[in-house]
Amino acid sequence: MIFLPMEIIKKKRNGFPLTSEEINFFIQSYTKSQIPDYQMSALLMAIYFRGMNNEETLALTKSMLHSGITVDLSSVPGFKVDKHSTGGVGDKTSLILGPIVAAAGLPVPMISGRGLGHTGGTLDKLESIPGFNTQLSLEDFRKNVLEKKICFIGQTQEICPADKKIYALRDVTATIESLPLICASIISKKMAEGIDGLVLDVKFGSGAFMKELSDAESLAQNLMSIARGYGKKVVALLTNMNQPLGRFAGNSLEVEECVSILKNETSQDPVEARMVNETRELSLILSAHMIHLSGQTSSIDEAYSRAEKVLISGKAYEKFLELCQIHSGNLSLLPRPEHQLAVVSSQKGYINSMNTEAIGVAGLLLKAGRAKASDVIEPTAGVEFHKKVGDSVSIGEKIFTIYGKDPGLFASAQVKLLESLSISLQKTAAEPLIKKILS
Amino acid sequence: MIFLPMEIIKKKRNGFPLTSEEINFFIQSYTKSQIPDYQMSALLMAIYFRGMNNEETLALTKSMLHSGITVDLSSVPGFKVDKHSTGGVGDKTSLILGPIVAAAGLPVPMISGRGLGHTGGTLDKLESIPGFNTQLSLEDFRKNVLEKKICFIGQTQEICPADKKIYALRDVTATIESLPLICASIISKKMAEGIDGLVLDVKFGSGAFMKELSDAESLAQNLMSIARGYGKKVVALLTNMNQPLGRFAGNSLEVEECVSILKNETSQDPVEARMVNETRELSLILSAHMIHLSGQTSSIDEAYSRAEKVLISGKAYEKFLELCQIHSGNLSLLPRPEHQLAVVSSQKGYINSMNTEAIGVAGLLLKAGRAKASDVIEPTAGVEFHKKVGDSVSIGEKIFTIYGKDPGLFASAQVKLLESLSISLQKTAAEPLIKKILS
Repeated sequence: MIFLPMEIIKKKRNGFPLTSEEINFFIQSYTKSQIPDYQMSALLMAIYFRGMNNEETLALTKSMLHSGITVDLSSVPGFKVDKHSTGGVGDKTSLILGPIVAAAGLPVPMISGRGLGHTGGTLDKLESIPGFNTQLSLEDFRKNVLEKKICFIGQTQEICPADKKIYALRDVTATIESLPLICASIISKKMAEGIDGLVLDVKFGSGAFMKELSDAESLAQNLMSIARGYGKKVVALLTNMNQPLGRFAGNSLEVEECVSILKNETSQDPVEARMVNETRELSLILSAHMIHLSGQTSSIDEAYSRAEKVLISGKAYEKFLELCQIHSGNLSLLPRPEHQLAVVSSQKGYINSMNTEAIGVAGLLLKAGRAKASDVIEPTAGVEFHKKVGDSVSIGEKIFTIYGKDPGLFASAQVKLLESLSISLQKTAAEPLIKKILS
Repeated sequence: MIFLPMEIIKKKRNGFPLTSEEINFFIQSYTKSQIPDYQMSALLMAIYFRGMNNEETLALTKSMLHSGITVDLSSVPGFKVDKHSTGGVGDKTSLILGPIVAAAGLPVPMISGRGLGHTGGTLDKLESIPGFNTQLSLEDFRKNVLEKKICFIGQTQEICPADKKIYALRDVTATIESLPLICASIISKKMAEGIDGLVLDVKFGSGAFMKELSDAESLAQNLMSIARGYGKKVVALLTNMNQPLGRFAGNSLEVEECVSILKNETSQDPVEARMVNETRELSLILSAHMIHLSGQTSSIDEAYSRAEKVLISGKAYEKFLELCQIHSGNLSLLPRPEHQLAVVSSQKGYINSMNTEAIGVAGLLLKAGRAKASDVIEPTAGVEFHKKVGDSVSIGEKIFTIYGKDPGLFASAQVKLLESLSISLQKTAAEPLIKKILS
């Protein structure tokens, strides 16, 4: 059956549900470049405004999944588990929980993404390690998951090529924050991975795509329902992104933070230690849920203890080094930023809120992420956090440190960072990191 | 100042007004291909949903106008006036009112368009006259307006290149029907013409882009407010497009109809005479408003009498012949259709309504217009109207005559034409041609 792309865009624009055939025609034609980017971006924006019902979302997921192949991990024994985060600023837990869970004995096949909009991406972080190659073949991926229990790859041309192309386009056309598009993108990729279980870290707050807890919760429920439809075990944690996670945002800076956690280093500076501990704690809790999904533990607490033991023993760090080896990454050559600039407070009071998306945009201005698909990331660019919500600040006190290679970019990032803050005389209580668990 | 295109798209998507700087950055960067089509189409769809306030629409218009050059007609004395129609089927008044107003002494600089979707375009009509060249240079345009008081050209590469590029994109991304986008596109081109006054013929009804009178009225008000912001005198007529205008739709056929009006010929057939009179009447009324805008008359009635006198005297026809000479057109070689087919009624009753857009689409099927940009128009293809809304029909009576070169195209056009009609036993009153005048 032949459809006119413009008529499909208009139908969605006018608020009518699309048929499975129309969705599949648009997705498959776009994947084969028979529909140009500019028509897809118009459709994506129309979907942003008009939404999609459950049937449309499922049809979209199926069409994206079937645009490529799925990885056959049936020859890999054990409960294969992955985690997916909906994205935030400073959200680096994959680099810690992957090694922990793999070292605890569960296969962790991770097909990860790149930075999206103002949020960071696992692949970009790993690639800040010189030589780190995320472009392994699916056969090498399967082999590493079998032998080393872990492998990180990017979405290959073979896996959900439709999603790959659409995701890149959404990133630069402000069409990320759409529930059906997010659902279909996440689930199509995760279903292609060959996993048995999935832990969802669904972020809410100013730095998340879902600003409201209720939206994040309905995203989580949608994701869980589609994943369960595919017969997978799944749990979702609703976690706080009203402030950045941990000490750093920025690719090599986040790797450094993760390595310090994996090496069980503790900073003498209590502020640094507190920032790093946020990352450590969330990574351990997510690891615990991944382990517990396998049915090997009788409680989350037991799974948490097991994860923490693996971390403290140094086995998770060994696994991380092994992972670097698998991917030809040379951790000892991790680049360090050449320049830095302290961003200080001009007022006295308490940090009332942080517009975390604006902090992510400051990262984009520093080239820690891509403003458009062809941009090249500066791996050492990023931001350090010295204060979080509820902390007191005095005039002249450091709130952020900007890092990077090109100090010419610092001024506009500084403006963005200062704009992100709301400082008042009244103290706001810090919010809990984990708000809710859906299982 | 540097902006991130994605942030501008997101700002509009989220319902915030854009600043003039943001709009100008986006438009100029897009025109220079520094912003890709896919980001522009996402912004256009966001504008479709969120609209633009008056300041934004004005900034958009200015930016499109300043993407190219404006014609300097300061050396041309007199009140320079143009008419713009928002487009319809059989809408051919420019070919009559241009010569009338020029013969009445006012300079008429007309930058005209081609057929768009189901609607016809002045340039396509003129080009059905063998040799008629609409691709004159801006210098020749200025010279002809000065010496002959009239010249018709198409949008050159130099005039509003931003509009030209955005228009082509809107056409294929279902983002035509947006009030601020329509306004900016129309006014930017008209302001580039160097005119002092503008008469707007804003169509409403089944054959117009604005189906509802209220939408057409708010378009008219927006257009007037922007044109006045540029210090232009402006008046808008809301005219009926619930049925085609006049006797013919189709390029050489419409030229024939206009020539018969300019030559003051009257058909002995009362139906033909009534159809042609619609075109004559609307052309005279629009001419009257153009003349009256100049301030040379004390009332519309006086201006109408002056226009009619010019028409009856034969001076308008002389001006039309002069126009053909300016553009190297040979009117005596105007082609005539080789084939024709009568479309007759299979039922008895009254014509209740005509889906005029469908009649325009029948024209496209006959190749009287372009279904895609690369199509070649058959100048003699078109439709003659023997009945309009409110007319009685008996079984076997002619409603339309199809004309053209390729009778193989007639069958599908016939189906479309018959489908466009709603015939009932109860008589519907004919609607007035002019519904409202805004000044």
